[in-house]
Amino acid sequence: MLYHYPQSFRDLVEQLMKLPGIGPKTAQRLGFFLLSAPDSVALGLAQSIEKARRKIRRCSICGNLSEDALCPVCADGHRDRSVICVVEQPKDVILFENTREYHGLYHVLHGAISPMEGIGPDQLTIPLLLKRIQEEPIQEVVMATNPNLEGDATAFYLAKQLKPLGIKVSRIAHGVPVGGDLEFADEATISRAFLGRKEL
Amino acid sequence: MLYHYPQSFRDLVEQLMKLPGIGPKTAQRLGFFLLSAPDSVALGLAQSIEKARRKIRRCSICGNLSEDALCPVCADGHRDRSVICVVEQPKDVILFENTREYHGLYHVLHGAISPMEGIGPDQLTIPLLLKRIQEEPIQEVVMATNPNLEGDATAFYLAKQLKPLGIKVSRIAHGVPVGGDLEFADEATISRAFLGRKEL
Repeated sequence: MLYHYPQSFRDLVEQLMKLPGIGPKTAQRLGFFLLSAPDSVALGLAQSIEKARRKIRRCSICGNLSEDALCPVCADGHRDRSVICVVEQPKDVILFENTREYHGLYHVLHGAISPMEGIGPDQLTIPLLLKRIQEEPIQEVVMATNPNLEGDATAFYLAKQLKPLGIKVSRIAHGVPVGGDLEFADEATISRAFLGRKEL
Repeated sequence: MLYHYPQSFRDLVEQLMKLPGIGPKTAQRLGFFLLSAPDSVALGLAQSIEKARRKIRRCSICGNLSEDALCPVCADGHRDRSVICVVEQPKDVILFENTREYHGLYHVLHGAISPMEGIGPDQLTIPLLLKRIQEEPIQEVVMATNPNLEGDATAFYLAKQLKPLGIKVSRIAHGVPVGGDLEFADEATISRAFLGRKEL
């Protein structure tokens, strides 16, 4: 008979292995840590996962993360409502906000068009964006999708949809490293890329 | 006004950062993953943490992990009850069990003596071990604590306590790892392997 850890411990390790970048060894190490850690750490983590899942939803206008029906940007009466900056992920909103150079609105796609992964416009919040364009007084849309294949394809796809509607469509400048991920660019680069945006 | 993530998301990232080896970037990445993952993954993890914490306790005899009052080894009537293998952590029990060479009992110290970190015998399960020696028909205790400063110190401390009681005390052999190449062994290991040489 091969000796096993208790079932509930094996279940925990198996769940931890579903996290990105966590292999069997790390999962086991984290499992032992979670068994012996104080309640505030172990149960605190479990509760904060449940709470975040319960409280956080997508902003009904732009798709950004929010605990309310509208995200802080959409709810802010002082924003320039003629510009929308289109990003792939909620974390990209933070990157642009922290530059303090941009005062318009956002639209979070929650991904990028990728035929390889079977992600088309309808799997993203693109229908919601096209509806916004028709209903809100938008004059410019800035494409701030990632500077890689999928991000570029998404930007060009949207430009083709929006330009016939008389909307100015721009792309953030390639001050951001080509082939990379926005997350790894510093604030100054992000800021320059935004200011140097070019009409598509 | 600096833009922030929703409070419940920031709480989640902060909790994730309390895990060993998880920095701010990884915590944020895991946080986004946990927000967008299926319920079975995100809530599944939260529930498995809570369940493991609720169900797993220490074996009342040896300190090993168990969902019952006695761990599978202590509850097994076929084990050799004259030998105890002393290990630092529950995961070490698995290592010895998987060799299928050992059929005695275990004692899990849950650490090692470390004056630097303020860990003395009473912070470990050493009092419980000394009680076992008096009450159970133990003839030999094998010290399988880690081959480092703390593990050695713990082994020597216990040997000093147990030998006057007429118990045979041994230490697992130190030497070059089986299946390896001498080139990759450090000097201390080579030295111990040489001193511990056995006649063929």
